[in-house]
Amino acid sequence: MTTSTVATTSTVAAYVASAAKAPLERTTIERRPVSEHDVLIDIKYAGICHSDIHQVQEGWGEAIFPMVPGHEIAGVVAEVGPGVTKYAVGDRVGVGVMVDSCRECANCRAGLEQYCFHGMTGTYNDRDRGGEVTYGGYSTRIVVDENYVVRIPDSLPLEVAAPLLCAGITTYSPLRHWNVGPGTKVAVVGMGGLGHVAVKLAHAMGAEVTVLSQSLRKKDDGLRLGADHYYATSDPTTFDDLAASFDVILSTVSAPLDLAAYFALLKTGGTFANVGLPEQAMSVEPFSLIDGRKTLAGSMIGGIAETQEMLDFCGQHGLGAEIELIDADQINTAYDRVLGSDVRYRFVIDTATI
Amino acid sequence: MTTSTVATTSTVAAYVASAAKAPLERTTIERRPVSEHDVLIDIKYAGICHSDIHQVQEGWGEAIFPMVPGHEIAGVVAEVGPGVTKYAVGDRVGVGVMVDSCRECANCRAGLEQYCFHGMTGTYNDRDRGGEVTYGGYSTRIVVDENYVVRIPDSLPLEVAAPLLCAGITTYSPLRHWNVGPGTKVAVVGMGGLGHVAVKLAHAMGAEVTVLSQSLRKKDDGLRLGADHYYATSDPTTFDDLAASFDVILSTVSAPLDLAAYFALLKTGGTFANVGLPEQAMSVEPFSLIDGRKTLAGSMIGGIAETQEMLDFCGQHGLGAEIELIDADQINTAYDRVLGSDVRYRFVIDTATI
Repeated sequence: MTTSTVATTSTVAAYVASAAKAPLERTTIERRPVSEHDVLIDIKYAGICHSDIHQVQEGWGEAIFPMVPGHEIAGVVAEVGPGVTKYAVGDRVGVGVMVDSCRECANCRAGLEQYCFHGMTGTYNDRDRGGEVTYGGYSTRIVVDENYVVRIPDSLPLEVAAPLLCAGITTYSPLRHWNVGPGTKVAVVGMGGLGHVAVKLAHAMGAEVTVLSQSLRKKDDGLRLGADHYYATSDPTTFDDLAASFDVILSTVSAPLDLAAYFALLKTGGTFANVGLPEQAMSVEPFSLIDGRKTLAGSMIGGIAETQEMLDFCGQHGLGAEIELIDADQINTAYDRVLGSDVRYRFVIDTATI
Repeated sequence: MTTSTVATTSTVAAYVASAAKAPLERTTIERRPVSEHDVLIDIKYAGICHSDIHQVQEGWGEAIFPMVPGHEIAGVVAEVGPGVTKYAVGDRVGVGVMVDSCRECANCRAGLEQYCFHGMTGTYNDRDRGGEVTYGGYSTRIVVDENYVVRIPDSLPLEVAAPLLCAGITTYSPLRHWNVGPGTKVAVVGMGGLGHVAVKLAHAMGAEVTVLSQSLRKKDDGLRLGADHYYATSDPTTFDDLAASFDVILSTVSAPLDLAAYFALLKTGGTFANVGLPEQAMSVEPFSLIDGRKTLAGSMIGGIAETQEMLDFCGQHGLGAEIELIDADQINTAYDRVLGSDVRYRFVIDTATI
């Protein structure tokens, strides 16, 4: 008797935090075998998201170590399982914040896998359906079920597409959900990794876009990327000048804000959509929402189909992130610079240097 | 030469708080002359709203004294100004929380007078467009511009209609705005003056209605008034049993809530609509809104046309408040009982006893 081919794991290089707050160091990890519906991706680029740092530092609670961060992944398909129908070797693909979900609950069936009733499986710092720890994109290769892989349009260079897998979809989804488009006025709070993409997206959607940033330091960039107006929130007159101006305010910052001051910038019935995840609770004065029937909403990434829609939209508009490409040995320095808001506007790791 | 008739003020009886936290006492006040578009109303009944107490006690900030509270007013037209076209002597009418607004801003033109850009004029504890202090419904007569008066359907007794002018519209407007109706599941938090009307309204709108009250003390009433389910929030299993159940949660309480626990009861995309006005800020964990694209919203009474729509709806459904009719000399006792949640479900003053 002969045995069938035994599927084997593969050893790949990765940058790993061995413990909470530890610096990232090069080592190797094991990737699972390429199963029936799996795609093996040669990672070319991986974005550095602020939430990578939150998780390495356990700012959101206990995390799993060793940890390979990275959920803004762009690469090329290197191998496919026998049941794969959506992708072929050589395809340009991306992976974002999740790599699986239950696929059966109402939200999964509705394309809202990010809100899976049983919890989506995070690309890293999580356990997959079989209980194995997941490792993210600061690595040379990754194995992902084809249903959680998206296609990157040919018009987008992979390195500027990578950050779209988190920063792009996290801002695209709420902009769409709250109907930002021609005739609407939207403010983007924070001109960072998420904010600068939000400005591009909202502009491409046809809205009138205002940036609300702490200072005017990045004003030229903001206007170049598509903002119509740019205000410093450190200047109190901003809040007088812009009272009752916006249909939607999209906040991308993780710092605590004086929410009542921002709600006062909304039109009647306006929405303050928050995608930033401060480590502290937000304080809300009840009357600041009641007067003007305003809403404070949250939004988390987007579903797989919506992520593909976002990438296609970006492809049509030639819209990618503004990036600083770094070698893998600069990751720790990059973390420090992200924490100091010293990046224009997203660090992307060239994984060839891992 | 003859002079035209001189319009004169009228002296009317009222219950007045002479200073913050002072007990209410009977005295007289002056009402303005009946001008071109004014209606003089013989007040028959006036509801006691928790916000009367907040304002007498300066819980929401500095107030104007002497104060005549009362913004749930039902009565009969006694006199009309020469330009009045909407009402005639003998008509059954109501006055709610506002008696004027700028009438020119986009919100006033859109029937959202309660969100007037220049501020609506409150029925009491406010100054009218001419700078005169406004006095509310704990009184025998009031003079109001016809455009801020609504008609009470013949099918509704005036005493059960009075509380609809605040408790009714405050809950009707958000239920309508967030599309409560057949096929939706709504939870009403708090089974008090607002909550019990919300239960009736949501039931009449065709929704599946759940009451979330501190205890099961009022369960029989809740079910009788139209609730399909009734849970005690003091029982932690409530929050397990009802996870991800509701399209809309309407909170009518002014006490601080553990909002994250309530957000967890919302379906994906659900709305927690708050009409209660706690004197403290609310604490919101960002992730509790982000996970499930949930919204925390506020809503304040309703516009004049919507208030009429609400009354007509209540008239069609024979829907009034559950009340305890009191004499005016019981107002101070009633305040104590409201603060102790000891009223089923709204005190209404028989103004014939003032």
